Amino acid sequence: MSKYVIALDAMGGDHAPESTVEGALRALRKYDDVRILLAGPEDRLRELTASATDVSDRLGYLNATEVIGMDEAPMLAVRKKKDSSLVVAMNAVREGQAGAVVSAGSTGAILAGGMFKVGRIPGIERPALAPVIPGLKKHFMLIDAGANVDCQPKYLLQFGLMGSVYMQQMMDVPTPKVGLVNIGAEAEKGDKLTREAYELMQAQSEYSFAGNCEARDIFTEDFDVVVADGFAGNIILKHTEGLAKALFAMIKEEMMGSLRTKIGGALAMPAFRKVKRRMDYNAVGGAPLLGVNGAVVKAHGSSGGEAIENALRQARRMLEGDVVGKIRAGLSGLGEE
Amino acid sequence: MSKYVIALDAMGGDHAPESTVEGALRALRKYDDVRILLAGPEDRLRELTASATDVSDRLGYLNATEVIGMDEAPMLAVRKKKDSSLVVAMNAVREGQAGAVVSAGSTGAILAGGMFKVGRIPGIERPALAPVIPGLKKHFMLIDAGANVDCQPKYLLQFGLMGSVYMQQMMDVPTPKVGLVNIGAEAEKGDKLTREAYELMQAQSEYSFAGNCEARDIFTEDFDVVVADGFAGNIILKHTEGLAKALFAMIKEEMMGSLRTKIGGALAMPAFRKVKRRMDYNAVGGAPLLGVNGAVVKAHGSSGGEAIENALRQARRMLEGDVVGKIRAGLSGLGEE
Repeated sequence: MSKYVIALDAMGGDHAPESTVEGALRALRKYDDVRILLAGPEDRLRELTASATDVSDRLGYLNATEVIGMDEAPMLAVRKKKDSSLVVAMNAVREGQAGAVVSAGSTGAILAGGMFKVGRIPGIERPALAPVIPGLKKHFMLIDAGANVDCQPKYLLQFGLMGSVYMQQMMDVPTPKVGLVNIGAEAEKGDKLTREAYELMQAQSEYSFAGNCEARDIFTEDFDVVVADGFAGNIILKHTEGLAKALFAMIKEEMMGSLRTKIGGALAMPAFRKVKRRMDYNAVGGAPLLGVNGAVVKAHGSSGGEAIENALRQARRMLEGDVVGKIRAGLSGLGEE
Repeated sequence: MSKYVIALDAMGGDHAPESTVEGALRALRKYDDVRILLAGPEDRLRELTASATDVSDRLGYLNATEVIGMDEAPMLAVRKKKDSSLVVAMNAVREGQAGAVVSAGSTGAILAGGMFKVGRIPGIERPALAPVIPGLKKHFMLIDAGANVDCQPKYLLQFGLMGSVYMQQMMDVPTPKVGLVNIGAEAEKGDKLTREAYELMQAQSEYSFAGNCEARDIFTEDFDVVVADGFAGNIILKHTEGLAKALFAMIKEEMMGSLRTKIGGALAMPAFRKVKRRMDYNAVGGAPLLGVNGAVVKAHGSSGGEAIENALRQARRMLEGDVVGKIRAGLSGLGEE
């Protein structure tokens, strides 16, 4: 019996199903305690996996005839396309056939499916999308990176718990330091939402709240979890991408300015490549959707076989560390159950 | 008769009053249509300016015995310290003695003083702090960078107008392209605030609204004015600082990794310095506080004589371009008067 059953949306992502099948086979060969259920057109998937006789006993199929496209309205797509690979994979978690779902499909559809198909952990107000991002000193989790606009203070309180549990179980941080993104370090700073969230976070003892985290400190200080409403969180995530791109472009432009700096730039190229790799949060893994009643990992749309393998490993570890169970347990500590 | 009278908070900033006096004298020597009123302890200021007989006819004094410190609670300080250099300078605008104020003092105190001493332009809901920032392709104004948390849609509508007028008059952009910071490009994206602000901005024809500006595009696209509530705007501003710092630190770290990249880094150094200078939004000038009934410019706290001179030039140009009058005129176009 495999301990960890993961449903994989085999049709999600730019390179599916080749990438997803490749990733699944790689993961199965690496982890013998994993069973993977491929959601998608069964005939085609069986064809693609026909030669993998070494792991076929831990490979299952969830037949699904539809696919949710990247540009479809998420809520509508999840509701209407009941036979899509994503919905079928999520239903497998809802019905207890699998403990986890991995998808490289549309973010919006994964959020909608996580919320309405997998379902929330009882007591959780809103699930949150929470990538782990490489900072200067350490990796940190940004929660929420865009699942929820118009947040309530209580959502942010719970985001802190979910992030803390994740970093503990997945990144081996014994006591994650949780910060609240704000426009100043002092308790009384911020808008109505952050001031009220600060009070709630300060009052609990279920996780280690380290106070406000000014935006200028997100990448340079040593927070393990950085809590923000989904609007601010998404802005931070996207602005990081845009600014890094702008900065590298400026550096390149300025280096072209003289022969000396051109040569310097050519010599220094390996260092730039390392920084780009270091900054690439997709390399850290997929983003978990926390707060739902199962381990849901959203892999990047452009994921190849290796990235899918990594996302599957991540889902496996979420099951191993019982992230869902520990969030549920933590909720009672917050007085939510 | 000097055409442009500017009150200068001679005691504001880390290097005051030496830096402010130096900046004032430099500006007076450069612009013979400017008169500067130095607010601060008159005896001391007269001593510092004693040798400047060439411009003494365009130098005035507003005696002030108090100073507002950088760490004082802004509202309280502005209310209590009626004889502080900042309040005295701002009162000079309120009473029509001067058209503009420049200060390198506490940002909070400048906001509070602008709001309550200088006063709002009739019809303006909230003044906004609006630095001009060097993007990859062009400079853009970020409005609001932190004066107002908990904004209403109408504030954002007006920020767009104020930013548009400023970029027209000050940066010679004939039709500034105004974007609304949001988490997606489509009209229906965002939180309640941005969705409602979008509708208001879309419905007006007083300035050129170019739709939503995703955070990843702020630095790389060609918006002239980027509108955000003060919470999001402040996060963008501060995150820019922090991330740039983190990126440069990472590049440096990685360059130390091998002899080749070390040499490359040393050769490329001038290019890095140029990028750092290019990214330094303080070099673009002080940040105007728009929406108040006078030209108010907040210079950086660390300003030396040259930076103060630049802020004075900026205030002069705001008077020359009649930014306040044009914002007032634009308001009627928005149906606000």
